[in-house]
Amino acid sequence: MRGGFTPMLDQKTEALVEKMLAGDRLALARLITQVENRSAAVGEIMKRVHGRTGRAYVLGMTGPPGSGKSTVVDRLTALLRAEGASVGIVAVDPSSPFTGGAVLGDRIRMQSHALDPEVFIRSMATRGSLGGLARATSDVIRLLDAFGKQWILIETVGVGQTELDIIKQADTTVVVLVPESGDAIQTMKAGLMEVADIFVVNKADRDGANPLITELRFMTHLHRAGSQAPKDIEWEIPALATQAQNGVGIEELLAEVKRHRSLLETSGALEKRRQARRRAGLQALLVEEFTEQVSRRLKADGNLAATFEAVADGRLDPYSAVQEILRRPDLLTPQ
Amino acid sequence: MRGGFTPMLDQKTEALVEKMLAGDRLALARLITQVENRSAAVGEIMKRVHGRTGRAYVLGMTGPPGSGKSTVVDRLTALLRAEGASVGIVAVDPSSPFTGGAVLGDRIRMQSHALDPEVFIRSMATRGSLGGLARATSDVIRLLDAFGKQWILIETVGVGQTELDIIKQADTTVVVLVPESGDAIQTMKAGLMEVADIFVVNKADRDGANPLITELRFMTHLHRAGSQAPKDIEWEIPALATQAQNGVGIEELLAEVKRHRSLLETSGALEKRRQARRRAGLQALLVEEFTEQVSRRLKADGNLAATFEAVADGRLDPYSAVQEILRRPDLLTPQ
Repeated sequence: MRGGFTPMLDQKTEALVEKMLAGDRLALARLITQVENRSAAVGEIMKRVHGRTGRAYVLGMTGPPGSGKSTVVDRLTALLRAEGASVGIVAVDPSSPFTGGAVLGDRIRMQSHALDPEVFIRSMATRGSLGGLARATSDVIRLLDAFGKQWILIETVGVGQTELDIIKQADTTVVVLVPESGDAIQTMKAGLMEVADIFVVNKADRDGANPLITELRFMTHLHRAGSQAPKDIEWEIPALATQAQNGVGIEELLAEVKRHRSLLETSGALEKRRQARRRAGLQALLVEEFTEQVSRRLKADGNLAATFEAVADGRLDPYSAVQEILRRPDLLTPQ
Repeated sequence: MRGGFTPMLDQKTEALVEKMLAGDRLALARLITQVENRSAAVGEIMKRVHGRTGRAYVLGMTGPPGSGKSTVVDRLTALLRAEGASVGIVAVDPSSPFTGGAVLGDRIRMQSHALDPEVFIRSMATRGSLGGLARATSDVIRLLDAFGKQWILIETVGVGQTELDIIKQADTTVVVLVPESGDAIQTMKAGLMEVADIFVVNKADRDGANPLITELRFMTHLHRAGSQAPKDIEWEIPALATQAQNGVGIEELLAEVKRHRSLLETSGALEKRRQARRRAGLQALLVEEFTEQVSRRLKADGNLAATFEAVADGRLDPYSAVQEILRRPDLLTPQ
């Protein structure tokens, strides 16, 4: 958030924000690029659009590569569009370029909505730090929200910490598996349980779909019984079979998503969860900006740099160094 | 690091540190417990032992559950002990209690060295935040180092962000797979590539060992060719076959570990990597302590709490809030 101390937006960005809020898709795309690149104007952009946010419903989709998430997203989008809802789609790929193949294929598949002006699709990939990607995704969601999208679908791969940070932005999260995922879920069980509101076993015409559904139901039941987490709603995580390619099971999935949404809304849990999420977001942004201010100062302040070097060389222990650094009265004074 | 502002150690802890530095295992165990529980004295303890650290060589072991990591650790320990080296073993399990079964079994298996006074074994599991676990592991490594252990073996499961943060403390990292890991590695390829200095395919008498070794060699070759990372040493990541249960391949593994170590040492890369690690550790500790100071202040300072609530309720955008908070001159003044 280098923009934290940018007092004004330049005229061009100002005009972009106005155009975006008036419904200009190109302006939206350009603002998203700024957010993705963490340009100096990000803070100011997000301040300007803030008053228009908070209306969209955010649906998260995650699961291993090849589970057909994008096809599920595609079919859900078709149903939502048929109901007249506008949709924003953000496909986030936190993996290294080394594993990017599958996701690229998915992106191409989603082009079936590319000509619909009420569907806005954006892919995001890692640029620099992974932490930055979660932050950028959160800002992109808010831009789409301010733009007026009623449903925002976030798609991401796997359940690493970054993917979890990204998917936790969602109001409802669907975990998409395939019958072959049986083994893979063993290693990521805990992470999946933490985020899933709904399980989908896609490509359910293949062998092993029913056993996996049974296992998921058993697992969620066990997890629910043993979980220490506060249960703000009475929700037994469903496990559904779909064949997204043929449109099978997608209506049922959307119905479950809406049932979850409605339960969250009527119980007041949606607002409480969003509050907790905003609080966590503020904390993360605070840490991010603190870190940036320290690194900026590190470049300009010889004493601070010397302390860092003493630790790097092993001459000073890090605990003493932290104590010394945080006592500097001017540590957070912008330079 | 609540200990950051604890000026002195209480007499009991002071005595523990002295005893530990004099070689008392029980004192070491008790200090590790303090570090694991993030007691208020941690900062002071780590300051006291700092001068005695920097001599141990840290070997990391990671891989999926059931790959036989602990048996590999056990056999390596036997070889190192036969050479007269003292060994510290830290087994870290960042997974939820829900997946803990396999690891517990591993711990029991390691008891074969439990009666050897020159082998110190410690298991650590998640307590509260995962970030705290990586920090605690790093401190435990330094305690074992100060205690005089020549080799410190860290064992952890999987390649999530926390596991990566933990395993990055190692000078050399061995990734242990089994022939059946073929599918699983697809999803974690990027993470594995990032940490592995040596691949081991354990239980290599089973079907699929040779194809996996071939694939790993191909993968590491590809990755190396495409990687943007600075190559501070000329090291082609080897992929070895072992049958730890029968002791097969362990001598070859230790030889590779030593070859890697020797290359790091003679090239000067070891010291440079350790410097980078200490710098990153300082940064992480700084952020951690900053976060703690902010949460402490949040409890005592009504204005700060009001800013957080305004963001939680959606009345204030987080960027404006961060700007406001970081401008407080007394933000980091201990209360």
